[in-house]
Amino acid sequence: MTSRTPDPARRSERSRQAILTAAAELVTELGYARLTIEAIAARAGVGKQTIYRWWPSKGAVVFDALLAGNANEAGSLALPDTGDVAADLRTLLRGTADELASPFLGSAGRALAAEVLTDPKLLDEYRERLLGPLLEVTRQRLRAARTAGQLAADADPDLAVELLYGPMYYRWLHGLGPLDHGYADRLVELVLRALRP
Amino acid sequence: MTSRTPDPARRSERSRQAILTAAAELVTELGYARLTIEAIAARAGVGKQTIYRWWPSKGAVVFDALLAGNANEAGSLALPDTGDVAADLRTLLRGTADELASPFLGSAGRALAAEVLTDPKLLDEYRERLLGPLLEVTRQRLRAARTAGQLAADADPDLAVELLYGPMYYRWLHGLGPLDHGYADRLVELVLRALRP
Repeated sequence: MTSRTPDPARRSERSRQAILTAAAELVTELGYARLTIEAIAARAGVGKQTIYRWWPSKGAVVFDALLAGNANEAGSLALPDTGDVAADLRTLLRGTADELASPFLGSAGRALAAEVLTDPKLLDEYRERLLGPLLEVTRQRLRAARTAGQLAADADPDLAVELLYGPMYYRWLHGLGPLDHGYADRLVELVLRALRP
Repeated sequence: MTSRTPDPARRSERSRQAILTAAAELVTELGYARLTIEAIAARAGVGKQTIYRWWPSKGAVVFDALLAGNANEAGSLALPDTGDVAADLRTLLRGTADELASPFLGSAGRALAAEVLTDPKLLDEYRERLLGPLLEVTRQRLRAARTAGQLAADADPDLAVELLYGPMYYRWLHGLGPLDHGYADRLVELVLRALRP
């Protein structure tokens, strides 16, 4: 009957997953502004103090929840690396376009972006927990391409990630045009023209 | 004594200028959310109805005021055209970097960007009155360079303006790094590599 013996580590991990799932669901349903730690705790079936034991704030748990939604089964954020940087960046930006064009990011995501803009503490948490890891795995993929000779030896990964994500984000924020796979592909083609040897 | 004769057209133009100046000053001092049409009218020395005769909303007068701050003496938005597209784009993006790095856009501008994000009507006014004209003169400058053979014949002006402004805006919004002239120059160099024949 060992499988029925209470296992604190396993129970703890189940609670953590339940909290992340509840946070992801509730930010979609309510938007960031109306979301509360109490509501996350109630849906996850845990006490508020359990959430505060692991996360310092509402922003922290929400960004971890959004990051978990983008992570692989090992729980880490990883980009495809087939060896073909053009194909991999197309996969990446098509996925980003799909997310930005989804109903969730069309409303709750805009509200969250607006709050990040005007709350320096929330921006810090966003950079630390969600944007930073995303940009870092992207830079790693670009460095691998540079090492393989597919990008110029002096290609700057910091500038390159802004060139990849910036135009799409700008189009999304301002509603300048559709975010479809054709757009993602044309953007990748231009960015690679800028970065190739 | 003709110069003292009241001239309705001239008086009207003076009022319009006073309103635009007051709106630009007040949005800097108060931020967009706390700004009112009453406050603009009081500072400009006109009645509220005078403002509403020319502008349908607070957003409309603020965006016209910000556009006027970027216009030349003829009152129109125009980009430099020296014939050297690289030099002209450097001038353009250095100016954009200076504006984004200025104390005004560091606080009031972020608040305005956040409101544009979450208010579809305000976003429409922003696109119509400020962003649209800016993107259009930028596309015109790029089309001229394409005609002159400095850009590829198939360079897409819509995508090109997003490639120019998007990365800098992304860096600014997320506080990813400094917005200085060196950054503007490196960005222009990359974008031109993407767009050249």
